[in-house]
Amino acid sequence: MKFPSPLSLSWLSEFLDAKLVGNTGASATGINEIHKVEKGDLVFVDHPKYYQKCLQSDASFIIINQLVECPPHKALLIVDQPFEAYQKIVRHFRPFEGAVQSISPNAQIGKTSYLYPGVFIGNHVQIGERCMIHPHVTIMDHCVIGNDVVIQAGTVIGSDAFYYNTNKNRESWYKRMLSCGRVIIEDDVEIGAGCTIDRGVSGDTIIGRGSRLDNMIHIGHDTVLGKNCLLAAQVAIAGAVNIGNGVILWGQVGVSKTLTIGDNVTVLAQSGVGVTIEPGKVFFGSPAEDASIKKRELVWIKRIPELWQKVKDRSENSGL
Amino acid sequence: MKFPSPLSLSWLSEFLDAKLVGNTGASATGINEIHKVEKGDLVFVDHPKYYQKCLQSDASFIIINQLVECPPHKALLIVDQPFEAYQKIVRHFRPFEGAVQSISPNAQIGKTSYLYPGVFIGNHVQIGERCMIHPHVTIMDHCVIGNDVVIQAGTVIGSDAFYYNTNKNRESWYKRMLSCGRVIIEDDVEIGAGCTIDRGVSGDTIIGRGSRLDNMIHIGHDTVLGKNCLLAAQVAIAGAVNIGNGVILWGQVGVSKTLTIGDNVTVLAQSGVGVTIEPGKVFFGSPAEDASIKKRELVWIKRIPELWQKVKDRSENSGL
Amino acid sequence: MKFPSPLSLSWLSEFLDAKLVGNTGASATGINEIHKVEKGDLVFVDHPKYYQKCLQSDASFIIINQLVECPPHKALLIVDQPFEAYQKIVRHFRPFEGAVQSISPNAQIGKTSYLYPGVFIGNHVQIGERCMIHPHVTIMDHCVIGNDVVIQAGTVIGSDAFYYNTNKNRESWYKRMLSCGRVIIEDDVEIGAGCTIDRGVSGDTIIGRGSRLDNMIHIGHDTVLGKNCLLAAQVAIAGAVNIGNGVILWGQVGVSKTLTIGDNVTVLAQSGVGVTIEPGKVFFGSPAEDASIKKRELVWIKRIPELWQKVKDRSENSGL
Repeated sequence: MKFPSPLSLSWLSEFLDAKLVGNTGASATGINEIHKVEKGDLVFVDHPKYYQKCLQSDASFIIINQLVECPPHKALLIVDQPFEAYQKIVRHFRPFEGAVQSISPNAQIGKTSYLYPGVFIGNHVQIGERCMIHPHVTIMDHCVIGNDVVIQAGTVIGSDAFYYNTNKNRESWYKRMLSCGRVIIEDDVEIGAGCTIDRGVSGDTIIGRGSRLDNMIHIGHDTVLGKNCLLAAQVAIAGAVNIGNGVILWGQVGVSKTLTIGDNVTVLAQSGVGVTIEPGKVFFGSPAEDASIKKRELVWIKRIPELWQKVKDRSENSGL
Repeated sequence: MKFPSPLSLSWLSEFLDAKLVGNTGASATGINEIHKVEKGDLVFVDHPKYYQKCLQSDASFIIINQLVECPPHKALLIVDQPFEAYQKIVRHFRPFEGAVQSISPNAQIGKTSYLYPGVFIGNHVQIGERCMIHPHVTIMDHCVIGNDVVIQAGTVIGSDAFYYNTNKNRESWYKRMLSCGRVIIEDDVEIGAGCTIDRGVSGDTIIGRGSRLDNMIHIGHDTVLGKNCLLAAQVAIAGAVNIGNGVILWGQVGVSKTLTIGDNVTVLAQSGVGVTIEPGKVFFGSPAEDASIKKRELVWIKRIPELWQKVKDRSENSGL
Repeated sequence: MKFPSPLSLSWLSEFLDAKLVGNTGASATGINEIHKVEKGDLVFVDHPKYYQKCLQSDASFIIINQLVECPPHKALLIVDQPFEAYQKIVRHFRPFEGAVQSISPNAQIGKTSYLYPGVFIGNHVQIGERCMIHPHVTIMDHCVIGNDVVIQAGTVIGSDAFYYNTNKNRESWYKRMLSCGRVIIEDDVEIGAGCTIDRGVSGDTIIGRGSRLDNMIHIGHDTVLGKNCLLAAQVAIAGAVNIGNGVILWGQVGVSKTLTIGDNVTVLAQSGVGVTIEPGKVFFGSPAEDASIKKRELVWIKRIPELWQKVKDRSENSGL
């Protein structure tokens, strides 16, 4: 999330009751979780295991729970509970607004777009021209829908990220990290019925221009889907995945988090993708591999009885 | 889709600005995509690769983008853009109607049927007697629900088909083929929560009498499910599949498009069906095969280490 | 289901027109299906194959279609159609109530809980404090939601069980057993968008304190999920499963009915669980096994060609 205007670190340190170290005169332009950080961003870290990853990331300002050496030109904001500090900032800039009616009066909806009855449109939502929004669709706050977009019945755009701060020493192990990101649906996208597309934790979940989603597809937070992709029914893509252009995922495919799938990749039905895939490849299986390798393995498995027989015959013949 | 009354080819050729060749005095009784064509139907084809399939199909009248030899008693309608001509006809006979309220005043709903609050019922929908329609169900235009049908919360009946005309030379690769088909739910069917059943592209998607669907099941366009079938949660069936009577699909099964599954087939959980299945068979695996073969393979896989050891031992013993 | 007050067997035998045998002076305190019976419960059985299981269960009173030897201190209620007798009792104590408005006037909703527009809340529902119920959520009659619960858009709580009395000699093979159980969501639970959680047939479906469910998760009737569990998107759990505390099920995992999964088990993505799992184990595959075994098998499969070559070489060398 970018802030409405840059925040001086002195204001931030006071707001968070934090000790400020390093480039104390600077200003933060946004806040992000570690997978999405950019120059000018705030990020938080609360476990020494991840200190170096955060300090060396593109983030300029690190909310941290210990004094460490500050990289040049960066700044540290030292607090006891970095996660709570992060939540406090998000809550300040994205306060809970609720909904006074089904279609928020501050949503901007193109005059030529058609909304069926029973649609929910949250605050600050933008919808372009010539869109068709079917019954019982939910579009939560701050999401952006382009022009010529179709969203079929019951689909949810902008549900909160499934992204937790874990600590098994608390009674409640999993604390939800507040989502301040959005969902952006580019022009000419068609989304089927019963889909769920989570907003980014701190960045944007993006569905690229011309892509087509069948029914009951789940897209995790901060995932970026390219242009002209085709996703068949019941595909599930976890969080922070980068998918190129022209990608085809057949029915019930699953994709694990933070992976990259190159342009024009095809993944065959029911496959489970746990690795990054180079452009143009065809993948299959659970776990998924190059489809030609996987299909050959299926043939080899069928030859085991023959192999067993060969070994047995020869044992008998050779008297072993 | 059948037309309200037969259309003379002369009217059609004028409507489409088409050159008419062959049995020019005939009338078309309906329009269908290639998987569903019947005698009297219009069909379209725009790629020489599929010319013969279309010309030799049951369709009587072919919208085509080139002059070819016309089979006896048939007629050709020659246009530059057969796909656009098809869309123009569908749009003419199924114009967008929208919805003035949640329950269309022209829907016919049996007096003894119960609709919970928050239901959407589209135009020209028919619902029989003693049905129970739970909250947030969506039933789109022209769908037909029999008697004694239960549809649980959030389910969508009659979403548009996921069926596209593909051309990677356009900026937008996938153009949706307009759906003019329906969903027909026969008597005594029970459908769980959160399901999506797509309408036929040009024919009907049918759920046979006495069938039971668990939650989150997806049924693709033009698929015909027989009587007394049992589908467990998260099953997904692609488009134009023919499924017999008494079929059982356990949880998370996927079925690929245009296949046939015979009467009384059982498919075990999470299987992926990519081939036609003979009546009475039990199938398992992804890709699915006869379950007895597939289960034996799982046993054989477990014997590979023993086989490896045998070969190794014998190599050592024989000094090779 | 517990009855509002104990029912004398004499009243019951008259209500059901049943012949009463055994401990005829007793009173029944509840009714349950066989997987959930407790002392004081009524249960029914209509097939000799299951007579002994029912008679020896914890149930005190058995509705049965034949005179058999009655265990000490128990009683039999003999009727022609035990299933219909069971349905009659359920219908009497849980009559169909319908809904006069979207939020039932007799629902008890904590003052600090927030309901978005477009929510359906059934009769006798209880919702605690500080809950957040997103748009288009459906909560059916009698369900109980604790404090600090989040339920995201489109989720259905309390859909009816997918649980049928089967008889292939009837025209309609599958008769739904009426659900009289509830869904209980304990405190501090977060449920994603587009989930479906079925009520118990006769017991309660329970989601344990602190658990987190991602989007599009299906939970079957009478399943009990422990505390601090984490379920990723598109997981499906069948009916009457017992899941311990701290269990993690990754994306698209399926769990078969009536199994037990121990505390702190992890099941990897897309696995299909068909067996009970001991506490602390990591499982993988379809069908799922100990992940270390399953992963080794994947390596062994890749060695089949090498094994084949070894055997072939040796055959040639030994002249066989």
